[in-house]
Amino acid sequence: MPKLTEEAKEARKDAILVAARRCFADYGYEGATVARLEQATGLSRGAIFNWYATKEDLFLSLADADAARFASLWLDGGFEEVLRALLVEDPAWLGVYFEIGRRLRTDATFRERWSQRAPDFERRLEERLRALQEAGELRGDVGWQTLGRFMGIVADGLAIRRATGFETEDADALIALAVSAIAPSRRQARS
Amino acid sequence: MPKLTEEAKEARKDAILVAARRCFADYGYEGATVARLEQATGLSRGAIFNWYATKEDLFLSLADADAARFASLWLDGGFEEVLRALLVEDPAWLGVYFEIGRRLRTDATFRERWSQRAPDFERRLEERLRALQEAGELRGDVGWQTLGRFMGIVADGLAIRRATGFETEDADALIALAVSAIAPSRRQARS
Repeated sequence: MPKLTEEAKEARKDAILVAARRCFADYGYEGATVARLEQATGLSRGAIFNWYATKEDLFLSLADADAARFASLWLDGGFEEVLRALLVEDPAWLGVYFEIGRRLRTDATFRERWSQRAPDFERRLEERLRALQEAGELRGDVGWQTLGRFMGIVADGLAIRRATGFETEDADALIALAVSAIAPSRRQARS
Repeated sequence: MPKLTEEAKEARKDAILVAARRCFADYGYEGATVARLEQATGLSRGAIFNWYATKEDLFLSLADADAARFASLWLDGGFEEVLRALLVEDPAWLGVYFEIGRRLRTDATFRERWSQRAPDFERRLEERLRALQEAGELRGDVGWQTLGRFMGIVADGLAIRRATGFETEDADALIALAVSAIAPSRRQARS
């Protein structure tokens, strides 16, 4: 059997990820069995697990990619862009995240791996938060760590709303409200 | 067999709910099998399902009670009290809510039943929101429906944070930030 080039390897790995994402979204994390992953990717379990050691690795690779994508969105477009992206994310895929909640709480190793997604972006997000606050573009009366955590809470709340199938008709008003919460004091900003 | 008095019936039903809540929290919604529910309640399946037709009914009775309790908290103490209550809620029990996300999205009947928890409280919450906004105690530049939805999103985001085992060291600052988001304009309120 001829050896795959590096490019071909990456293409193969990406194709597996695309199919696995669809499979997780369709059947949920637990429901995405090895047989279903084989069907979705068109590959044998041996071929799949040659690239990703376990189902957990497959899922964490997808979560890594999402974390990097959302961090980029945040760095390029700010909090508003992150919320807008969540509004068009596939609800079924968002649901997979909430399905792993119990595992995150009870499995220390999984939790540790989860926390280490996109570590470089994490550092850059922190730097950006501090810089925005120093420049007066975020409210100054609350620590940047708290502002960051608040943004995470709002993003998760919006994601769970979509994952459970509730639509957000007044999305623009909701986003404006969330953004105003972290902005410099409303009157202050105008004066 | 002597007939149970109404009081004894209610006591029996309540005892089942208490044990079932613990069982769901310990094993998750899916993991709370009929055998485990029997063990937790100390009753046979026949005795349990005499009062609650299905496992779903058991869970929805617990969700009903929670919805009424949180609505009362909101009516008596406002948004802040709801967030404070979430901070001391059992993370394992909160996790059960997020486990049913897929079901909420894909099962229309379940979704309908879910939406009808505590309908009377729902009406009273809406009335209160409108009254608070008219009295100038909520910001006036955003519709009360949006303010209500925003509060729900923040509460869900905080709940998922706890359900996944992440602690909120700066809870006071986070709550103050969330409350300030829906308050009348900061400068306006002071002037």
